[in-house]
Amino acid sequence: MRVGRQTVIFEDSPSIFETATTVGKKEGEGPLSNCFDKILEDDYFGEDSWEKAETKLQRETAKRVLEKTEIKEEDVDYFLAGDLLNQCVGTHYAVREFDIPFLGLYGACSTMAESMMIGSMLISGDIANNVLCLTSSHFCSAEKQYRFPLEYGGQRTPTAQWTVTGSGAAMLKKDGIGPYILGATTGKVIDMGINDAGNMGAAMAPAASDTLSALFLETGTKPEDYDLILTGDLGTVGSDILCDLMDKKGYNIYPMHNDCGKMIFDIKKQDVHAGGSGCGCCGSVFCGYIFKELREKKIKKMILMATGALMNPMTLLQGESIPSIAHALIISCEKENFLR
Amino acid sequence: MRVGRQTVIFEDSPSIFETATTVGKKEGEGPLSNCFDKILEDDYFGEDSWEKAETKLQRETAKRVLEKTEIKEEDVDYFLAGDLLNQCVGTHYAVREFDIPFLGLYGACSTMAESMMIGSMLISGDIANNVLCLTSSHFCSAEKQYRFPLEYGGQRTPTAQWTVTGSGAAMLKKDGIGPYILGATTGKVIDMGINDAGNMGAAMAPAASDTLSALFLETGTKPEDYDLILTGDLGTVGSDILCDLMDKKGYNIYPMHNDCGKMIFDIKKQDVHAGGSGCGCCGSVFCGYIFKELREKKIKKMILMATGALMNPMTLLQGESIPSIAHALIISCEKENFLR
Repeated sequence: MRVGRQTVIFEDSPSIFETATTVGKKEGEGPLSNCFDKILEDDYFGEDSWEKAETKLQRETAKRVLEKTEIKEEDVDYFLAGDLLNQCVGTHYAVREFDIPFLGLYGACSTMAESMMIGSMLISGDIANNVLCLTSSHFCSAEKQYRFPLEYGGQRTPTAQWTVTGSGAAMLKKDGIGPYILGATTGKVIDMGINDAGNMGAAMAPAASDTLSALFLETGTKPEDYDLILTGDLGTVGSDILCDLMDKKGYNIYPMHNDCGKMIFDIKKQDVHAGGSGCGCCGSVFCGYIFKELREKKIKKMILMATGALMNPMTLLQGESIPSIAHALIISCEKENFLR
Repeated sequence: MRVGRQTVIFEDSPSIFETATTVGKKEGEGPLSNCFDKILEDDYFGEDSWEKAETKLQRETAKRVLEKTEIKEEDVDYFLAGDLLNQCVGTHYAVREFDIPFLGLYGACSTMAESMMIGSMLISGDIANNVLCLTSSHFCSAEKQYRFPLEYGGQRTPTAQWTVTGSGAAMLKKDGIGPYILGATTGKVIDMGINDAGNMGAAMAPAASDTLSALFLETGTKPEDYDLILTGDLGTVGSDILCDLMDKKGYNIYPMHNDCGKMIFDIKKQDVHAGGSGCGCCGSVFCGYIFKELREKKIKKMILMATGALMNPMTLLQGESIPSIAHALIISCEKENFLR
């Protein structure tokens, strides 16, 4: 049921039935290390290129969620997936090995939320029963593509974020044990003129603020209604901006806000500057740590909002700024229509 | 209603309410010239880069479909769009100027069908009433990104296709005059080992064959049930392969098959080798010529199947082959549940 311009509430909430994660060595040395299914010893993952390693991240993570759920490939109605690589090739080379209808998405670092949002819509609309949502990022393939060759050893600016090497997969199911996706707020593309590819947090925060205030307005809920408001990867800089922007709109989210990019690394010790980023950041933190907290009911109701910066390096060289988007999901460990 | 592994039939078929198109100079000199809303005199379209011109193609085409339908921005529930550029930037810089919730897709040249498929699913599932589907491609931005600098003047192989400069937009509506989308067959990622970026048709034909035979099997229909089986951009080489592959499976589609890449250019006179390609090929041919034929009931029932090659230039240099996908829609000028 549409409750506003951007928000739908699902009358029969789809379940996040199971998740799986794979992360790189550095991520495995961070504070969430015991929440991941597999930690790589070497970020090449036995392959001869970073791009092939990223494909393997997705393939192995998808296989793992199928194993954990004991759902057969032929019972998965749709694969919804994408990544950061040009033409989303991490995903395409991974999914060609599965006999599952595929819908390709591009949402940059918002992909985990975008895939779970569209998946929930397809389940809610009786189009699908089981949907496999998948994404990844890889520090080395992303640096090479978006910034500088790793071998160049470029100095990183203080506002720069560290692309997470990792993959998250979530199996959504029409009937299943919780947590449940109660609703979703779809973002608009927002561009406030930031053009520094070393400051993605600042570029994405206005989009996050736009989507989050739409969610509150359209659902009639307040920040206090949620145990956690979790953004994808605004990092330290973008998180501060988001909280301040929301404060100016009259929403105090300081107490319950956190960010996957701040959680996955020990920011001071691991030299990641403003924190983690990449599709795999929200993917592995949500599908790893947060999913467990929801299943154990340590988190009862939360907002998951992944943000994406939608430029490419060439558009910045052509003088363009960074358009961004944020997609939000309302997730609860209890099945309820919270609007009633 | 799901009728098989890959196919859904919509109980209340969404309408393709209106379309709009913009194409480049060369496309405007082709056999379909009088079917497009606007033909550019200069493919820079008043911009200072081909990428910005491609963004303008999408922006202007989206504006035109809004004008033609008299649907206001605030009444469009979702924008579903994508293109061929790295990180789909043609789309992102276009949609940031609209106040419409956005879901980004990557399906390469299958994007027009993918967007209309997901749009139909969202409408059928009561998630949306009005969905704007949009895509584009631009010969110059695509050549530069996928093959060689234009200035290099490289010789094109006989199997190479010519990326269409063009954009197509379709407004889907829950209630509206036809044509209607009766059902959709979602493709799987198929890779038969072709690794020649100058022979996309051969790479995509097996995916087209896989989806089309699934459609026939799952709907219990035959090629003769359709006036037209229209592929997106297999070109001359890929079209012949598809027809032969289908023939081997027992389906004679030679009489009613055609391909947007064969239709948009006068292949002999316009020096386009194996025909047109790119998201804008299916986008402009369907939204231009075919839509008019459906509305005038010259075509009564058809299959629109857009195909996409899902590699990037780097993966080919790393020795990979070209994974492909094909998404099919069953479109009719009459609203009917043809399975009953």
